[in-house]
Amino acid sequence: MKIEKDDRLILITNDDGLYASGLKALLEVMEEFGKLVVISTTESRSGMSQALTVKMPLRVKLLDETERRRLYACSGTPADGIKIAVNQLVERRPDWVVAGINHGANASVSVIYSGTMAAAIEGCLYGISSVGFSLNDYSATADFDPAKKYIRKVMQGLTRESLPEGICLNVNIPDCGEKDIKGIMVCRQASGYWREEFEKRKDPMGKTYYWLTGIFQNHEPEATDTDEWAISNNYVSIVPVTVDMTAHSFIPELKKRLAR
Amino acid sequence: MKIEKDDRLILITNDDGLYASGLKALLEVMEEFGKLVVISTTESRSGMSQALTVKMPLRVKLLDETERRRLYACSGTPADGIKIAVNQLVERRPDWVVAGINHGANASVSVIYSGTMAAAIEGCLYGISSVGFSLNDYSATADFDPAKKYIRKVMQGLTRESLPEGICLNVNIPDCGEKDIKGIMVCRQASGYWREEFEKRKDPMGKTYYWLTGIFQNHEPEATDTDEWAISNNYVSIVPVTVDMTAHSFIPELKKRLAR
Repeated sequence: MKIEKDDRLILITNDDGLYASGLKALLEVMEEFGKLVVISTTESRSGMSQALTVKMPLRVKLLDETERRRLYACSGTPADGIKIAVNQLVERRPDWVVAGINHGANASVSVIYSGTMAAAIEGCLYGISSVGFSLNDYSATADFDPAKKYIRKVMQGLTRESLPEGICLNVNIPDCGEKDIKGIMVCRQASGYWREEFEKRKDPMGKTYYWLTGIFQNHEPEATDTDEWAISNNYVSIVPVTVDMTAHSFIPELKKRLAR
Repeated sequence: MKIEKDDRLILITNDDGLYASGLKALLEVMEEFGKLVVISTTESRSGMSQALTVKMPLRVKLLDETERRRLYACSGTPADGIKIAVNQLVERRPDWVVAGINHGANASVSVIYSGTMAAAIEGCLYGISSVGFSLNDYSATADFDPAKKYIRKVMQGLTRESLPEGICLNVNIPDCGEKDIKGIMVCRQASGYWREEFEKRKDPMGKTYYWLTGIFQNHEPEATDTDEWAISNNYVSIVPVTVDMTAHSFIPELKKRLAR
């Protein structure tokens, strides 16, 4: 693949591995928008958040190349993949970073744990317009056709100009049929948390171990401007995500507390 | 250790492992403030961000118990440790989660990658007042005495009331002698990013691999209200961190862009 000056160059990744049908669906849509460099994790790396591989070396393999698409596999996390692609693999800075389609929603505080959103945040930190797409369906055989239609629609609206510095987008698609999707809703991140319910088990040697499970608790189920509300009411949710985690409004009060 | 109703119960973790001198220093200060439950990672888990262990079971071991302190080791990430402690190990909800002292600063966007801050964020998501402490010195033999003095001071100011829902604190201590520290500064997160410089090497089989290295780039070195400015000018920086990553100010413009 030759990358020309006028090409729109799109860097794509996911965290469900190379053979995930969500990645396949994303590629089918995104090749309408530009030339693609794909860097997938070699296996599923869900829940990796912004984790980086600092104690192990990274391996990258070029798997396939056509006129419009180049496909790499990377041994690290989704964030590693974006870093190494931008720094070592791509001839010039990509115009967009697009991650997904994740198998499972990344609404509310899941933005903090998500490998998909970590990839978008990583792109954003490089000053590249970045979006993460997730479908509210965990199954490997999920139907990605409605998602594809809405990703096309969202990208048509977005690609006319770049996103502001320090802001990327978190897009979640509801798990209903295409005709039941009511539209696209720009929202804020719902306040909530994962109530963990560890399963305590005994291994064959009689020793205790734990499996992490969890149920999401929405602190504000009645609020109608959140991503959680949107996807459970069959809207595609779009939350603009900032990499500035400062709680600016608490600064004056914190100064007071520390001055006492 | 018996946890009474009136005890201040403090859950402590780090991401440099059980034998880190930063953890030892933190415990020495924090035992002045309450009874301690410590859950350390079994080894160093730097750069793990909010990663969770979802594909492997977790192991926890009670290592030591006195009248005022209980010490566990956990096989997972710092975020895993907080989750399992709150859900399985502690008789009642802790009053504070305190993480650190990290060997190395976690200012600016490092808040997004840091395992130490992930532990504080995790506590915050449970509605527990949470703080992460880091020292701007990577070495295993760093001098933690100045840090101890300032952690005591910060905690004295803070423990009179709880932190607001959804906000935790990121505290960074400069790596200068105690008499050179100019004071405590409440700041915002500096805008910047890690410019990665991968080292490309060949393994003994002749195959390429990469090591992640990196240099921090401050986008606003002249701004005097950021954490980066504070620690490089010998102030202890305190940034209030929100778990709401919504870029609220961009919502109206995003709605416009998608409506076109």
